Amino acid sequence: MKIAIAQLNPTIGDLSGNFQQILEAAKQAASEGVRLLLTPELSLWGYPPRDLLLNPGFVKFMSAELQTLAQQLPSQLAVLVGTVEANPHAFSQGEKPLFNSIALLDGGKVQQIFHKRLLPTYDVFDEDRYFEPGRQSNSFTIESDSKSKIRVGVTICEDLWNDREFWGKRHYEVNPIEDLAHLGVDLIVNLSASPYSVGKQKLREAMLRHSASRYQTPILYANQVGGNDDLIFDGSSVAFNRAGEVACRAKAFQSDLVIIEFDPERGDLLPASITPLPETEEEEIWSALVLGVRDYVRKCGFSKVVLGLSGGIDSSLVAAIASEALGGENVLGVLMPSPYSSEHSVIDAIALVNNLGIKSHKLPIGETMEAYDKLLEPLFAGTSFGVAEENIQSRIRGNLLMAIANKFGYLLLSTGNKSEMAVGYCTLYGDMNGGLAVISDVPKTRVFSLCHWLNRHGEIIPENVLNKPPSAELKPGQLDRDSLPPYDVLDDILDLIIHKHQSEPEIVAVGHDPKIVNKVMKLVARAEFKRRQAPPGLKITDRAFGTGWRMPIASRWLISNQPIEDCRLQIVD
Amino acid sequence: MKIAIAQLNPTIGDLSGNFQQILEAAKQAASEGVRLLLTPELSLWGYPPRDLLLNPGFVKFMSAELQTLAQQLPSQLAVLVGTVEANPHAFSQGEKPLFNSIALLDGGKVQQIFHKRLLPTYDVFDEDRYFEPGRQSNSFTIESDSKSKIRVGVTICEDLWNDREFWGKRHYEVNPIEDLAHLGVDLIVNLSASPYSVGKQKLREAMLRHSASRYQTPILYANQVGGNDDLIFDGSSVAFNRAGEVACRAKAFQSDLVIIEFDPERGDLLPASITPLPETEEEEIWSALVLGVRDYVRKCGFSKVVLGLSGGIDSSLVAAIASEALGGENVLGVLMPSPYSSEHSVIDAIALVNNLGIKSHKLPIGETMEAYDKLLEPLFAGTSFGVAEENIQSRIRGNLLMAIANKFGYLLLSTGNKSEMAVGYCTLYGDMNGGLAVISDVPKTRVFSLCHWLNRHGEIIPENVLNKPPSAELKPGQLDRDSLPPYDVLDDILDLIIHKHQSEPEIVAVGHDPKIVNKVMKLVARAEFKRRQAPPGLKITDRAFGTGWRMPIASRWLISNQPIEDCRLQIVD
Repeated sequence: MKIAIAQLNPTIGDLSGNFQQILEAAKQAASEGVRLLLTPELSLWGYPPRDLLLNPGFVKFMSAELQTLAQQLPSQLAVLVGTVEANPHAFSQGEKPLFNSIALLDGGKVQQIFHKRLLPTYDVFDEDRYFEPGRQSNSFTIESDSKSKIRVGVTICEDLWNDREFWGKRHYEVNPIEDLAHLGVDLIVNLSASPYSVGKQKLREAMLRHSASRYQTPILYANQVGGNDDLIFDGSSVAFNRAGEVACRAKAFQSDLVIIEFDPERGDLLPASITPLPETEEEEIWSALVLGVRDYVRKCGFSKVVLGLSGGIDSSLVAAIASEALGGENVLGVLMPSPYSSEHSVIDAIALVNNLGIKSHKLPIGETMEAYDKLLEPLFAGTSFGVAEENIQSRIRGNLLMAIANKFGYLLLSTGNKSEMAVGYCTLYGDMNGGLAVISDVPKTRVFSLCHWLNRHGEIIPENVLNKPPSAELKPGQLDRDSLPPYDVLDDILDLIIHKHQSEPEIVAVGHDPKIVNKVMKLVARAEFKRRQAPPGLKITDRAFGTGWRMPIASRWLISNQPIEDCRLQIVD
Repeated sequence: MKIAIAQLNPTIGDLSGNFQQILEAAKQAASEGVRLLLTPELSLWGYPPRDLLLNPGFVKFMSAELQTLAQQLPSQLAVLVGTVEANPHAFSQGEKPLFNSIALLDGGKVQQIFHKRLLPTYDVFDEDRYFEPGRQSNSFTIESDSKSKIRVGVTICEDLWNDREFWGKRHYEVNPIEDLAHLGVDLIVNLSASPYSVGKQKLREAMLRHSASRYQTPILYANQVGGNDDLIFDGSSVAFNRAGEVACRAKAFQSDLVIIEFDPERGDLLPASITPLPETEEEEIWSALVLGVRDYVRKCGFSKVVLGLSGGIDSSLVAAIASEALGGENVLGVLMPSPYSSEHSVIDAIALVNNLGIKSHKLPIGETMEAYDKLLEPLFAGTSFGVAEENIQSRIRGNLLMAIANKFGYLLLSTGNKSEMAVGYCTLYGDMNGGLAVISDVPKTRVFSLCHWLNRHGEIIPENVLNKPPSAELKPGQLDRDSLPPYDVLDDILDLIIHKHQSEPEIVAVGHDPKIVNKVMKLVARAEFKRRQAPPGLKITDRAFGTGWRMPIASRWLISNQPIEDCRLQIVD
């Protein structure tokens, strides 16, 4: 029996577009003799629909679309489609109003509905906000070509992520895969929308391998692909045979349709095409960011982008990502030197523009700075040059970039990295401006490693950009290292704070300088107000600033017993 | 037996400050012969702690503070303190790592711990993200002065919000108050952190009245007070006797300590002081916004604010709120007329400055606009004046305001109303700039009613500000009504979209012009990218843009079958 995985790239709420994607995959699968087609979790909506789920009219409309889809599918093909179902017992039982569901469409009808049992409610996931967990094991039987009946266990994304033997602990009370194994299903399918983070696919495959071999049951894992706001879904759908070996793997970071043969007699999958995994983490991250930019730009209705080019490494990397995603002709780099800009800032930016084949324009901001100085002179008289003046420059640039974006209908990309966003080394309404923050989840040390990887076959990022010391160039001779610890130290401390949830004493205990740790913690706490107003940023780690980072602003979150004065939040830069 | 309610105003995560508040309230209560003191939900942390809860070091530290507090409390006084407790079965049972708890401190020790049973996970609430629900009914016995034993049922906020008879439906499976009534407790306490919205106190009291009389049990409701980021807690702690009558009510929008006598023989509360409720919704909202501004400014470590004064009604109202919250001498209004500004914009703003007694400064932006025009001329040649040029003006103003904020350590207040934020009639990085959006949850029609209410005893908002047609004044002769439907129509449609979750056909069905409905829905969908980057805004309705509004950006959320081109999101203004 042939089973296909349609690794689709839906747009959230675009029901007609997503409907068409499923229908086209179904036609292609049917033409190749497929009996059962898998699509990702919530394939009709796109994942995550977020508060669109609170609109009952939308839910009803989706339900009607599902019926229509069932009628239009090729005969002889059964399709599992991700949708939501109203919970009829919500009000009487005090339950949530919806289920996160999979519909089995076959023979022109909705034959069966399965509900997701484990609802992730952590990080970027809010499923308890909308959904009631399913209480039953999900399975169906399907007649294969050979007229033997196959029993298929159905799981939805998180349902597979609770094996105590694999994780060493339980995340939820029940383990749906164990329940299915006890039922004695012939194979298990998992329909997912699992977002990318560095190394995630290796973890997924280790887990799937463990489950397939532990329960001696083939597992077919169908993942969503594509960027939806901050989340990048990497696809990499994969099938494991009973021995826990990869039988088939779809492409990473691209739409795909793969077909796998299930042999009812052997009760196992036959080997099929296996796309190799990306070779390095840098290759993986690069592909993720390219997809994230391409999809955000496209799904928001744009085709061209603009960004500021400072001659620094961050904007250089973002320009490279954008030109890979959209084509160099659709990228406009704007050089905006000030009197404090080094000679090299322009030379290096021009070299990058030439290497990438993107468009560029130069707008020196000196005279505009003078207009502000003149206007503010009566008010600022007697004060010395400081953060206020530094930020004016950055905000002039931000204003110019938005003017260009507004005038020509371009999307502005912002270029700050995660280390900067963490400590607030960036200007709100200045260099933070943009519709999308491309590398705001990429630590500075990783920015360097990505650029070196990018240059592996020849120069793309100019050598001087890689070698000069990082600088914001907002005052004469300014260097990042005068304000911040060295980036390798900073990134390590930030990882302990952000990813490992460690406190000041714990971070000092691993050997970091107490003064530096205290300074970094204060900076991270203080910068919360900036991050709250940042554009959506592409998520590549397991803890990004964004929809999954929910911190109070007016708060104290340092444990050390500093006087309040030292810990206070200053919303002044 | 005397029972006191300490209506406290904690700062999130400020454990030493919150500790001191509890201790001082305890000392005062003890000096008045109180036996039992109630404090709000999570009183040691402040509510909501959000992702600070993910830091195990912080949780441990809080736990140690609780022990210390128990030792420092006056003897003879039992205190219920809000805290979190680690869930020892989290990993083995697949449960959440924490409980939202109340500790009973008495005799120098933590005597008992109670866990919250109903965990709100909707709107701004994310409790399923952090907490496991308590499974048991919570009660304790306490010896009163007369040596009779009183059995007290303990509920935490949401635990009381699930009476099917009152709501006509169930929100959760269990009803803790019913369980307690079956246990036969003498009185029920509810320790809350329930945020304000218009009319919320009336709803709370109707519910509490119903429960007290239904179960013939007195209920003491202790609520948090104060602003924490977007949320304003209104206090208004209240006690109901067995007959469902108010026996005592604390102040609204202020810290308070109230004492109520429980008569063990009658098994009821004796009448105590009752603060009247605010007389009008306008008075309520005004008090809420004043508190929200005062606390955000103070808890972020500021004392002074700056804002742009356009001579329009929105900035006038915000200036009035700020001067009430902080004193006129701590408010700086900046007038930034452009060549497109009407003569009255300056005259009206100056009249407001005089009425309020705030400081002001004038910065005409004409020359700075020319500097941008000159710089962009080669790029913009041949295009006509449009949104790009309008936004440049707004962003010049935003830059000037941030420069002043940065230079002098002021907090910038932004002044956009909810109607504008809904349809995107505002400039990102321009008039949206600020640390706090004071009226971003106040619809334009309510802005008018607030200003009229404010002028009830004499002119505060200049008459001309109230009477002239609203205008952004970004091009000659521009009026809001040329771009938007009349505000009464707009606000009604927005209410149906935002609060009632209605779809296009449903809104048309109640009698609105289909073209206007379609236009408004498109504007609301398109403006999502702006709202994502807005400052925190004070929440006064049951559905604000902010932490409880979780919409995708790159999405389609219109049901009408428009061509995609018409529905696409344009991030261009």
